[in-house]
Amino acid sequence: MVIMIDGSTPFDSTDAALSDPSYRAALVDLFGVLAYGELVAFERLAADAAMAPRVEDKAALAGMATSEYRHFLSLKDRLSDLGVDPNEAMEPFRQPIDEFHAHTKPADWLEGLVKAYVGDGIGTDFYREISAFVDPASRELVLDVCEDLGQSAFAVDRVRSAIAADPRVAGRLALWGRRLVGEALSQAQRVAADRDALSALLVGGADRPGVDLAEIGRMLARLTDNHTRRMQELGLAA
Amino acid sequence: MVIMIDGSTPFDSTDAALSDPSYRAALVDLFGVLAYGELVAFERLAADAAMAPRVEDKAALAGMATSEYRHFLSLKDRLSDLGVDPNEAMEPFRQPIDEFHAHTKPADWLEGLVKAYVGDGIGTDFYREISAFVDPASRELVLDVCEDLGQSAFAVDRVRSAIAADPRVAGRLALWGRRLVGEALSQAQRVAADRDALSALLVGGADRPGVDLAEIGRMLARLTDNHTRRMQELGLAA
Repeated sequence: MVIMIDGSTPFDSTDAALSDPSYRAALVDLFGVLAYGELVAFERLAADAAMAPRVEDKAALAGMATSEYRHFLSLKDRLSDLGVDPNEAMEPFRQPIDEFHAHTKPADWLEGLVKAYVGDGIGTDFYREISAFVDPASRELVLDVCEDLGQSAFAVDRVRSAIAADPRVAGRLALWGRRLVGEALSQAQRVAADRDALSALLVGGADRPGVDLAEIGRMLARLTDNHTRRMQELGLAA
Repeated sequence: MVIMIDGSTPFDSTDAALSDPSYRAALVDLFGVLAYGELVAFERLAADAAMAPRVEDKAALAGMATSEYRHFLSLKDRLSDLGVDPNEAMEPFRQPIDEFHAHTKPADWLEGLVKAYVGDGIGTDFYREISAFVDPASRELVLDVCEDLGQSAFAVDRVRSAIAADPRVAGRLALWGRRLVGEALSQAQRVAADRDALSALLVGGADRPGVDLAEIGRMLARLTDNHTRRMQELGLAA
């Protein structure tokens, strides 16, 4: 349970929450960034499938990609339910997400797998944290689209095998993991600066208290710890 | 109804057909080439989605790609039902299909659309023709995975709009369409030469009559006519 600065807890009722226009705007941003992220995750997993050396790996990655597309559809439907055009809701996030991916194009199949695991891992951890600040129905949707589709076990297996076969790849992939985090943070910062309603979900707005600084510190610590754990699972230094 | 050289018609019963080992081998080849083709069609439509300038086009193409993946799963399941490893059944077709796509990488979004419409059009027309030579249950599966997923209307709309906006693109895309056909034929020829069981479906084998030459001529004429019609629908000279 997250406790806000004024001692209250975040929204318990979806209907009450949605009557607040700045909260609605924040939700539209949240679902918009998630929806565009899922659409691009679909494209990226499909591109990883195209790089896969074995046909069974292609099929596995294609299957994960289609699940990301299902997530995209759920978010798109929810945006329509909120009375907004899904394309307009996604638009503000195209540039930061496209730039993140343009700056982190995997050079090969292994870099693609590390990106799918480590990059998406930080993203979904972050959205799970955010889900504590939204109404129950929205929380359920966010947690649903953040489910692990099997990428994790798949990436850990393939990356560890590759390192076992040639230990030199570990150094290159560890550097790659660090670059992914750096790029993700720089784009996240940009989104936070540009999208007031979205940031206000976390830090509070004119008529809604946010969490205190200590809680934000703990959240960042959790994100960092999880990232380090994921890198270790891959057999990489964080 | 296709009439064979000896006056008989192709298989009426799936069970009777499957008891013939060379027919089974042909089916495994047919489903193998279709399955790998669908998997790559998935990857390619996803790559087209990544090139789409508008987010609603991305979403539309991603949806078509996931339908190709469903087709792939149906074929994979049928191969398993036939008692073969789907990956092994696909393996002989990886190289010709991968080479076709390596030689016909779309330079932009419009070339991708023309390829999805014209290239897949020839492919599915050909498999529909082949479906006349297989047992009823197999025919149903082949026709099912050859269904148009909406690519056609989508491609025609977008390509015609692009030509209306800039008539010069028509010349480039017409050349591109011709190159696609040339590459497709050269890879098809290679598959026909390498896979005796598959070719025997059409031209007959040791203990099974094939169609006569006049029928093959009519089939090629139908494939060519349909191709010309598709190019015209796009607003391109065939």
